[in-house]
Amino acid sequence: MNTIAEEIARTKVSELDEMLGKTLKVLDDGFIRVIDYMGSDSSIVQAARVSYGAGTKKVSQDRGLIRYLLRNRHTTPFEMCELKLHIRVPMDCWRQWIRHRTANVNEYSTRYSIAIDAMRTTKPDEWRLQSSDNKQGSLGFIDKKAGVELSDSERDFHNYCRREYESRLDKGIAREQARKDLPLSTYTEAYWKIDLHNLIHFLSLRMDSHAQYEIREYATVIGEQIVSKWVPLTWEAFLDYRVNSMSLSGPEIKLVSILAKGDTNRAIEVAKEMKWLTESDTGLKPSREAIELLAKLEKLDIVAPW
Amino acid sequence: MNTIAEEIARTKVSELDEMLGKTLKVLDDGFIRVIDYMGSDSSIVQAARVSYGAGTKKVSQDRGLIRYLLRNRHTTPFEMCELKLHIRVPMDCWRQWIRHRTANVNEYSTRYSIAIDAMRTTKPDEWRLQSSDNKQGSLGFIDKKAGVELSDSERDFHNYCRREYESRLDKGIAREQARKDLPLSTYTEAYWKIDLHNLIHFLSLRMDSHAQYEIREYATVIGEQIVSKWVPLTWEAFLDYRVNSMSLSGPEIKLVSILAKGDTNRAIEVAKEMKWLTESDTGLKPSREAIELLAKLEKLDIVAPW
Amino acid sequence: MNTIAEEIARTKVSELDEMLGKTLKVLDDGFIRVIDYMGSDSSIVQAARVSYGAGTKKVSQDRGLIRYLLRNRHTTPFEMCELKLHIRVPMDCWRQWIRHRTANVNEYSTRYSIAIDAMRTTKPDEWRLQSSDNKQGSLGFIDKKAGVELSDSERDFHNYCRREYESRLDKGIAREQARKDLPLSTYTEAYWKIDLHNLIHFLSLRMDSHAQYEIREYATVIGEQIVSKWVPLTWEAFLDYRVNSMSLSGPEIKLVSILAKGDTNRAIEVAKEMKWLTESDTGLKPSREAIELLAKLEKLDIVAPW
Amino acid sequence: MNTIAEEIARTKVSELDEMLGKTLKVLDDGFIRVIDYMGSDSSIVQAARVSYGAGTKKVSQDRGLIRYLLRNRHTTPFEMCELKLHIRVPMDCWRQWIRHRTANVNEYSTRYSIAIDAMRTTKPDEWRLQSSDNKQGSLGFIDKKAGVELSDSERDFHNYCRREYESRLDKGIAREQARKDLPLSTYTEAYWKIDLHNLIHFLSLRMDSHAQYEIREYATVIGEQIVSKWVPLTWEAFLDYRVNSMSLSGPEIKLVSILAKGDTNRAIEVAKEMKWLTESDTGLKPSREAIELLAKLEKLDIVAPW
Repeated sequence: MNTIAEEIARTKVSELDEMLGKTLKVLDDGFIRVIDYMGSDSSIVQAARVSYGAGTKKVSQDRGLIRYLLRNRHTTPFEMCELKLHIRVPMDCWRQWIRHRTANVNEYSTRYSIAIDAMRTTKPDEWRLQSSDNKQGSLGFIDKKAGVELSDSERDFHNYCRREYESRLDKGIAREQARKDLPLSTYTEAYWKIDLHNLIHFLSLRMDSHAQYEIREYATVIGEQIVSKWVPLTWEAFLDYRVNSMSLSGPEIKLVSILAKGDTNRAIEVAKEMKWLTESDTGLKPSREAIELLAKLEKLDIVAPW
Repeated sequence: MNTIAEEIARTKVSELDEMLGKTLKVLDDGFIRVIDYMGSDSSIVQAARVSYGAGTKKVSQDRGLIRYLLRNRHTTPFEMCELKLHIRVPMDCWRQWIRHRTANVNEYSTRYSIAIDAMRTTKPDEWRLQSSDNKQGSLGFIDKKAGVELSDSERDFHNYCRREYESRLDKGIAREQARKDLPLSTYTEAYWKIDLHNLIHFLSLRMDSHAQYEIREYATVIGEQIVSKWVPLTWEAFLDYRVNSMSLSGPEIKLVSILAKGDTNRAIEVAKEMKWLTESDTGLKPSREAIELLAKLEKLDIVAPW
Repeated sequence: MNTIAEEIARTKVSELDEMLGKTLKVLDDGFIRVIDYMGSDSSIVQAARVSYGAGTKKVSQDRGLIRYLLRNRHTTPFEMCELKLHIRVPMDCWRQWIRHRTANVNEYSTRYSIAIDAMRTTKPDEWRLQSSDNKQGSLGFIDKKAGVELSDSERDFHNYCRREYESRLDKGIAREQARKDLPLSTYTEAYWKIDLHNLIHFLSLRMDSHAQYEIREYATVIGEQIVSKWVPLTWEAFLDYRVNSMSLSGPEIKLVSILAKGDTNRAIEVAKEMKWLTESDTGLKPSREAIELLAKLEKLDIVAPW
Repeated sequence: MNTIAEEIARTKVSELDEMLGKTLKVLDDGFIRVIDYMGSDSSIVQAARVSYGAGTKKVSQDRGLIRYLLRNRHTTPFEMCELKLHIRVPMDCWRQWIRHRTANVNEYSTRYSIAIDAMRTTKPDEWRLQSSDNKQGSLGFIDKKAGVELSDSERDFHNYCRREYESRLDKGIAREQARKDLPLSTYTEAYWKIDLHNLIHFLSLRMDSHAQYEIREYATVIGEQIVSKWVPLTWEAFLDYRVNSMSLSGPEIKLVSILAKGDTNRAIEVAKEMKWLTESDTGLKPSREAIELLAKLEKLDIVAPW
């Protein structure tokens, strides 16, 4: 059994202590600052051992226990850690962020104060093209010349927006009403506090390649520069069991087990029975699920059957 | 004991059934539609009686029980009712709305779809002036002439905004990026589902005179046109115990008890001891709490001591 | 576009309407009754389409959309459905149940009312043995003779418990204090209301083979007899993407890709590098993660390498 | 503007640092230990000022701001503080405790480990009598002689319970099943983590005279011995605006305003109109709400009209 003093010491993380209050830049004018934190990898282990009973406390065993907890979705010990950030983020990005409900928030108020005079700007080579086959994403960038025009136009637009806002304030219009036409690119600031379990969930969704670029940038900084230092064992387990993992559905397990034997014909037959492949004028047409399987097969280094 | 059929019948509210899908207009282009609901005043009573044991079920007793529950903050029975709305609301209003975390939300996505082509507009006589003594609110309206100019300017601004947005889309820019400069006045839509306990909390905050005008309009429609018909006994209790109630702090109780006896001098003496009144060049200066008490005394029809 | 009447009709599920109020038996004296519900598979689709924009509404497309949502953890549309149950359950089972926090609960109060006179009893062939290699579970049953003794002893014990409780009440002791020695096997009742997203999460944890037998019985009834009728498309997707799915971690993907090529030697080599296999006196000793992989390989019909 | 180092220093509370890990006894065998905390009164102020904008930071102003926030239910800044406790509590008390859902919990598992060998015992002078006019509470104590008998009986019962439990374990029965007849008086332990806003809500309900004695003891220790030292300004405001406050409903405001003028007859007349007083054979019969008003009038030092 450790002494109380030892237990308390184990909840401090010197690498994170050194970062407190330091500004990590994100996007053109955003940032993330760690304001405070509670707990460490050791705190997770300590809470888990309330259930499992006391045991030896070598780091090698801590690692095994944390991996076990994360792998088997025993999530409550991770809730024993808490992180408090000060962030600066464009409002359209914040609109996505705030959808994570299990967090504590104090946002800069444009009702009480004058809106921050900064908007998210776009460099000529940062204008993204609409993806055609994927409804939600973007794909590649517009050519340089068009990009320059768009950035010029954006700058004029931002100037116009700010003038309109300030002109209202100058005339005495209430801040709560004047603000209504601020563009979503306007930066806001917030204190954001969340427990590690919910933070992991946030990161797994927002570091993902399907997340929008802007929020992905914030999530990546939180993950790679903060969480990795704060709780390194949890971060390693998170990479193995979330970021770099794959899920196989019931039907996919069936097909993989056939393909692992190299029986492509049988796999195609089964896929047809499941309506994953349908005959069309131009040959076999794979369903959306059949297409999604291909990416998984590639990771498994198994030859694509269609 | 009621039969199952009777119990089920008591969960239906014909007045609300008639409103399902009907559009209630709010602001210039917003609306609220009831999509579905679960439960009724009877369901609250039914759930409460799981705890209290069975009893007679006359309406007069239902009323007494519901009032008792609301008065004493026995909140869980109210969670047994659920309301699902389809709303159309400007984004800056929605930013306040979404802060109520215990609700279920599906919002119109400007990542998948093109943004709704409607913005909250302001008539010349609707421009509100900044309140000087209260940081957050607005007070009165700007004069007609200035209002006309502001509304003209707003119209031009909205046109510019939409052109900028559509011009980006025309050039093939991804919707998720093109939208970043939409003004906060742009209308969005959402399905919003919430239980009655949390809805009551929402209404008590957002129907309040300190809430911003726009969200107050929505809250008032939800309260007066929907909740009042859905759960009339709960609505009546809500008006008595929340909307029209007052809270007296420990110090306020002390002062009211003195003032109810007409002893103004003693009240002033006590207020000085508590530092609610301080001497200044221009006489006694009341603290913020001392000023807040005046409004309560007026409601209690007790003469103001300072 | 559907009419309002059509939309409303699509939120009703006749198979579930017929079950309202009917008692589904669980364990020796427990039950589950559906009291009310909100929404259907169609409501999920309807909410999802607020984001995706209107589309055609054939059932085949509803199915595809629901599967897509569940597969990609787009969870908010499932929150648009709500289920309200009346359950009767032993307190020790209820202690696990209540840990699911995102639900609404009204429990029978033994402070206001006399405790329910029923305890969870165990038949001679139902006494489970402690599993030795798995800390949490049970494994097999005790022999008949010992089982008879245990059940006899349990009966005597329950009688003693009830006498002790009632004797206190007879002497006028407050119910809130008299109840303190009730055994955890005492049945309690509750109204329990939860949205479909959180219900799916509950089912995935509590229908799992690692869940304790008693709560698994309740979860299975809720899943197989209620959810399967209420939202059949969601239920089918849940079986494919949760119940019958498997997750492969980063290291597991690596090993499976090697084993799918039949290269057992290389797999063992890699496993040693990752410390999944360590040399011991009795040969190679697999780590816990190495052992867990074996069950997955069996499902994939790939020969175990260790 | 403070430096980062100053800001960080202000989040430490030396009085609480000294208590970390120390055991505070509750009931006969329970305890509370502070394991960790995040934030201080200063952190609340800091978070609130994200909204209000920077200002001077004297303690006198901190106090005014915290009182303002608590008085006006601006609750989010209080969510920026977090407290983590290790508690030991009887299971029947824990059953009430766990109903506060917005908290993080890791409880001692009697599935993985052998149940704690301690039960809540009752001294002869601690047996409480059932209150007759109030369904939920207890009132006074049983006489000494009966108390001795009850405590003797309780001791025998506890011994029996433990023998039954251990006898099952000895026979190899799974811990998860053997535990099912443990009495609710059995002590359990848990790590419990909660933010200050939700803790305040917990305390206002559980320190209240209507709360059961046992949980009130825990809440009082948390409030008076921990929170009062951790966030003294918040604690003072909590006492003024929650513990020692009173709420007057719409109808009560009306009656108090009449009674403050000494017009008892008019008050009775109005009370009759509102059906708060009804004629009966034995004179005027006050309703439950009319009776509740009497306690408030006493606090306001106003003579009771009925």
